[in-house]
Amino acid sequence: MSSIRHALSIKREDDFAQWYQEVISAADMAEESGVRGCMVIKPWGYGIWERMQYLLDQRIKATGHDNVYFPLFIPLSNFEREAEHVDGFAKEMAVVTHHRLIPGEKGGLIPDPEAKLEEPLVVRPTSETIFGDAMSRWIQSWRDLPLRLNQWANVVRWEMRTRMFLRTSEFLWQEGHTAHADDIDAREHTLRMLEVYRSFAEDVLAMPVVAGEKPENERFPGAEETWSIEAMMQDGKALQAGTSHYLGTNFSKAADISYQDREGQQQLCHTTSWGVSTRLVGGLIMTHGDDDGLRVPPSIAPWQVIICPMLRDKQEDEALLRYCENLRAAIASDHVMDEPIRVLLDRKPGKAAAKRWDWVRKGAPIIIEVGGRDLASGTVTVIRRDRLWGVDGKLAVQGPSHQDCTASIGALLRSIQRNLYDRAHERRERNIRRDIETMEDLEAFFSSDQRYPGWVEVQWSRPTGEGLAKVVEKLKSLKLTFRNVPTDAKDAGGTCIFTGDPAVERIYVARAY
Amino acid sequence: MSSIRHALSIKREDDFAQWYQEVISAADMAEESGVRGCMVIKPWGYGIWERMQYLLDQRIKATGHDNVYFPLFIPLSNFEREAEHVDGFAKEMAVVTHHRLIPGEKGGLIPDPEAKLEEPLVVRPTSETIFGDAMSRWIQSWRDLPLRLNQWANVVRWEMRTRMFLRTSEFLWQEGHTAHADDIDAREHTLRMLEVYRSFAEDVLAMPVVAGEKPENERFPGAEETWSIEAMMQDGKALQAGTSHYLGTNFSKAADISYQDREGQQQLCHTTSWGVSTRLVGGLIMTHGDDDGLRVPPSIAPWQVIICPMLRDKQEDEALLRYCENLRAAIASDHVMDEPIRVLLDRKPGKAAAKRWDWVRKGAPIIIEVGGRDLASGTVTVIRRDRLWGVDGKLAVQGPSHQDCTASIGALLRSIQRNLYDRAHERRERNIRRDIETMEDLEAFFSSDQRYPGWVEVQWSRPTGEGLAKVVEKLKSLKLTFRNVPTDAKDAGGTCIFTGDPAVERIYVARAY
Ligand SMILES: [Zn+2]
Ligand SMILES: [Zn+2]
Repeated sequence: MSSIRHALSIKREDDFAQWYQEVISAADMAEESGVRGCMVIKPWGYGIWERMQYLLDQRIKATGHDNVYFPLFIPLSNFEREAEHVDGFAKEMAVVTHHRLIPGEKGGLIPDPEAKLEEPLVVRPTSETIFGDAMSRWIQSWRDLPLRLNQWANVVRWEMRTRMFLRTSEFLWQEGHTAHADDIDAREHTLRMLEVYRSFAEDVLAMPVVAGEKPENERFPGAEETWSIEAMMQDGKALQAGTSHYLGTNFSKAADISYQDREGQQQLCHTTSWGVSTRLVGGLIMTHGDDDGLRVPPSIAPWQVIICPMLRDKQEDEALLRYCENLRAAIASDHVMDEPIRVLLDRKPGKAAAKRWDWVRKGAPIIIEVGGRDLASGTVTVIRRDRLWGVDGKLAVQGPSHQDCTASIGALLRSIQRNLYDRAHERRERNIRRDIETMEDLEAFFSSDQRYPGWVEVQWSRPTGEGLAKVVEKLKSLKLTFRNVPTDAKDAGGTCIFTGDPAVERIYVARAY
Repeated sequence: MSSIRHALSIKREDDFAQWYQEVISAADMAEESGVRGCMVIKPWGYGIWERMQYLLDQRIKATGHDNVYFPLFIPLSNFEREAEHVDGFAKEMAVVTHHRLIPGEKGGLIPDPEAKLEEPLVVRPTSETIFGDAMSRWIQSWRDLPLRLNQWANVVRWEMRTRMFLRTSEFLWQEGHTAHADDIDAREHTLRMLEVYRSFAEDVLAMPVVAGEKPENERFPGAEETWSIEAMMQDGKALQAGTSHYLGTNFSKAADISYQDREGQQQLCHTTSWGVSTRLVGGLIMTHGDDDGLRVPPSIAPWQVIICPMLRDKQEDEALLRYCENLRAAIASDHVMDEPIRVLLDRKPGKAAAKRWDWVRKGAPIIIEVGGRDLASGTVTVIRRDRLWGVDGKLAVQGPSHQDCTASIGALLRSIQRNLYDRAHERRERNIRRDIETMEDLEAFFSSDQRYPGWVEVQWSRPTGEGLAKVVEKLKSLKLTFRNVPTDAKDAGGTCIFTGDPAVERIYVARAY
């Protein structure tokens, strides 16, 4: 394997953080913008996010939600009302204080002191409070329930240390907000959306996740229950890839979201909220990327198949392009995963080898090269990105006929989608320890020589309050966090590894992003 | 006609501005948010915008553009660099000055004085300057051109007087930004996007528009040419529905967007920008709305067909719902305008008549009611929203068989789409005067008794600078503005109505939003 000359200069095993940055730039996904903590999402990165939006939006609509759009700005007083909620956000928010610029005395522009806002506006870090205001207006009777809304938007949380896609001051996301007649319906809905996220992550992103409930200390500010899906990155760390919150009546009380029930009694609604963000793109990179760049699962690849003609600036190019265009049209007329196959004939000027490696780094699932010899023999050269190298350390290529290639592309894309999931799932299972029963073993495991230790699933007694705080403190000293209590865990038995009390359930412990 | 009891309380001819507000609330499209100048876009209004986005995005991608996402915040210094550009925006912008809130001394929250930004950030009013920065990094050689980018985003321009969808402090839009090797290619592209907007407005929104060039005084700040599509509202006023700008090298000089040409020489790029916004939703209302509410053209209706079962809370309801569900499935399996028909079976609790009128006010193109009698006779009751009333002043309904209804829905939707366009086109042509040749006649026309005068197309000499300013001033005193010089106007001859000089082209004069 060491003889392979990979397309990136940094290997995952050498420096995972540096490798991550190199993938983003080598795949031309995003770059720093020069505006503190904000990135520019470039076409390939944004194309992947658009595909995520498109496919997740269908699932959100299919579960009965309508999309809406609420203001970017939230009056300061909304936050003052929701004290607990705001505390949780550590108040790191962008604050708009003026609505006009004027020339300054030393030249340049300054905020006009005459145009100071009476009440500062906060750029939304999340929209519970402003959705709550509207819900209190829109909901009158039991007939209006459940009210199921969703919004695609940008949000801002001022971050001191940022990393592209994973933690940026501005990010793009989807936030669902629903109101229900009672806690049974609201809890059910919280779990329904968790399941939407789980299946979206696994079936669409080919990213295996663990769905489960967060412990008390990891709850969303103001939530009664917070559930998450957690994915294991290739460095063994956990990435929280989506959350779904049961908010009880906390926000309803603050915003007076109430309804008249069938008996004519006034009742408080029970609300939920849930979201995923452009963070998923970061998760995708760290799940499927390899030492040659990104590998994009076919279902979310902006282009699933790239055709690269090996142009030579000669007259033969014309026949070659005709041959390629036929191929493109034939593949595009086929369907896979309920959509037409997305195939691009790359006519850009440039050397064939350079273009091949560009698409390898971007992670297009299938690259088809067509040269003069292919044209003569009626064949094409196929590279599948998920299995780039042969056992001999050389590029693994296949040379089917034009016709066989066209006929097999759909099946090949499905096979790549499955293979990426399977590899990620195997890797995760290989890196979970379920046999650790003492704190000593836990500490030993995470301080061992293993460069990228994975997760540990332990039994615990679910302490709360001060008891929990002590455990969290201890874990923090080991740079560890609780991830979640998986919904499908085996029963617990024996004693809690942290408290010595009888264990009641199993929970994941890991380093995390 | 006067015997008709319309679904709205205000008629267009009585108070157009009030009627507009009533449509928005009666069709449940949007409402004031409580945040100054910002609205909440509700499901029906947002659903229409989503359809616009979906269909326009296809056309933008088909003309070679990639979508990207740039930061919400722009450093103040970017604006200082582009002096002319900023002047044009009158500096009414939202300014972020702090990044943290802390508890105030009198309770509540205040911006933390310790967390004042060194350089204030402006919430983007448009993104030329920040796209320019990136283009200057991304473009090296002629091979990188043309660079064609587009962004769907929210933008903020602080507005003192706001009106929902037409002028709000925050609005949603699409902004295209492209860079080209020379002015020929850039100008060509400016007009290509103008044509995309024209055909989108006419073919999709069923909204006839005039495409043409804006006079000098109406140019986008920093542009060399500004082109627009202008639509006539039912009160005769013009609505600028989209603009496309040729920016010359103005932004390239400021941001150093240059490339090496084939001969190895460094050249400045020529850039363009173009956009449409949620303003289009306002235009849609004022083009197609009537005294019963909105009428949505089928191509952008979130639901094209609504099936309302006349439920009676009895056992027969079950058979009725089965009958309706069969109908829904049959219609949904059909296609129109290259997409599956969007049909909703409205199962919400509520009286049948109330539900009918809700959908009339929202403007769903076809409403199908099904009652016990229909079930017995195998028929349905069909209402087409574009022709709601018969000549007898009664609701115009048809009663085809279940089967005939299913078979004819596609053709009916196409007919409604065409009819809405034709009516709007006839109305516009009826309300354009092309025979006015003196200022006296112009003044007389616009101060006549006619409640809603339309547009006047006159000949002019295309004055510039001070000469133009005088004319604009004069028009302003009549509350009139220049709209554009239509691309397809007849040749000019005779004298300019404003200056007395020889006329060189024809231009539209109108009141405007
Ligand atoms: Zn509760
Ligand atoms: Zn020029």
